[in-house]
Amino acid sequence: MTDPARFELFAFWRTSATYRVRVAFNLKGVAPSEHFVNLDTGEQNADAFLKINPMGAIPALIDHGDGQSKTPLTQSLAILEFIDEIYPTPPLLPGDAHGRARVRSIAAMLAADTHPLITGRIKKYLTTVGKFDDAAWRNWQIHWFSSGLQALEKRLANEPETGVFCHGDTPTQADICLASIIVVMRLFKIEVDGIPTVLRVMAACEQLESFAKADPNRQVGAPKA
Amino acid sequence: MTDPARFELFAFWRTSATYRVRVAFNLKGVAPSEHFVNLDTGEQNADAFLKINPMGAIPALIDHGDGQSKTPLTQSLAILEFIDEIYPTPPLLPGDAHGRARVRSIAAMLAADTHPLITGRIKKYLTTVGKFDDAAWRNWQIHWFSSGLQALEKRLANEPETGVFCHGDTPTQADICLASIIVVMRLFKIEVDGIPTVLRVMAACEQLESFAKADPNRQVGAPKA
Repeated sequence: MTDPARFELFAFWRTSATYRVRVAFNLKGVAPSEHFVNLDTGEQNADAFLKINPMGAIPALIDHGDGQSKTPLTQSLAILEFIDEIYPTPPLLPGDAHGRARVRSIAAMLAADTHPLITGRIKKYLTTVGKFDDAAWRNWQIHWFSSGLQALEKRLANEPETGVFCHGDTPTQADICLASIIVVMRLFKIEVDGIPTVLRVMAACEQLESFAKADPNRQVGAPKA
Repeated sequence: MTDPARFELFAFWRTSATYRVRVAFNLKGVAPSEHFVNLDTGEQNADAFLKINPMGAIPALIDHGDGQSKTPLTQSLAILEFIDEIYPTPPLLPGDAHGRARVRSIAAMLAADTHPLITGRIKKYLTTVGKFDDAAWRNWQIHWFSSGLQALEKRLANEPETGVFCHGDTPTQADICLASIIVVMRLFKIEVDGIPTVLRVMAACEQLESFAKADPNRQVGAPKA
């Protein structure tokens, strides 16, 4: 492990976006010090945390490296790119521009087109203003997990760049985003049909300790089994 | 203009994601040949287009450069990064890793956390399965445009990196994503209060011909004024 004290990560056990950052740091062999922000009790909107990140958003990453801005880094996709730039080995993006575009496209299908639809703020709106009951909310979750992962299945099963992982035989940002959706889907006890290639890639990810030890159930704050 | 025949862009006049790609190409001085895919009549799901992009998604970008994969590039954030890699001048990202992380974070707040919530597929679900009437759908749009842009306002007004544009005094991916939200919001005739810095940056963008000529109303397929 390098630079153990350089980074402070403000995190919660359960969120998909925090999981992505944990996996990326694990793959690079870097351990940030982690601070638990309890989203279930609204700690992200309490004064103590708003002094750290006025946006009230996690993950937030503070870099204590010399001469760096102390504005926390936010948004998991941006943080993944940052980690990959600061610690280039092993790379989380392919070496060619077309490959990078494909990996970033898959990452966006998951982290931009799928995950934002099933977050807590959407649940809050739909179950209050939108009058969704529990069953309607669950159908909404199932619908968007299914459409996102089934679209990804179509790509992974048909595009020649797919390998052991989403792109070739080493993990990339695409795999991190894929796994981040699956681990949260499991927490909701939702299963999606017709995604054998997605699940095959997920199994390959979980063979790696960097993914396995980022599992939400293994984090501080997770309910005891 | 360079490489006029290298790229084919499959596009629609009105979408936020297509607008981003148009602005990026304009800033680089590159003109792809553009093909109109009529989302209002479902052309994205017709056989003719599915042969080009089996995902049925626009924007889709085909690169006819020598030896390149013919799998179309998709997802606007991935395409912006690709264009910036292939044509490095003028850069759409800052020169330092923290700056790049900030620009990508702002881009994600808009293109990942805001825009996916107000797309056609969400409207379809909410107005059919979700039983939203026109007023409920409009309130939903207003809510997410407002929360996204007001969160951005807080950042732009308080973070020292903000300049004439979102980050410094030249346009970046962040400005492209900001403008892509505002142009669509205008088409819906929605206004958001309390975002003076956001609107000041938008005005700076529109001073540039690269943004102005990408305006949805100036594209093939737009209704006559």
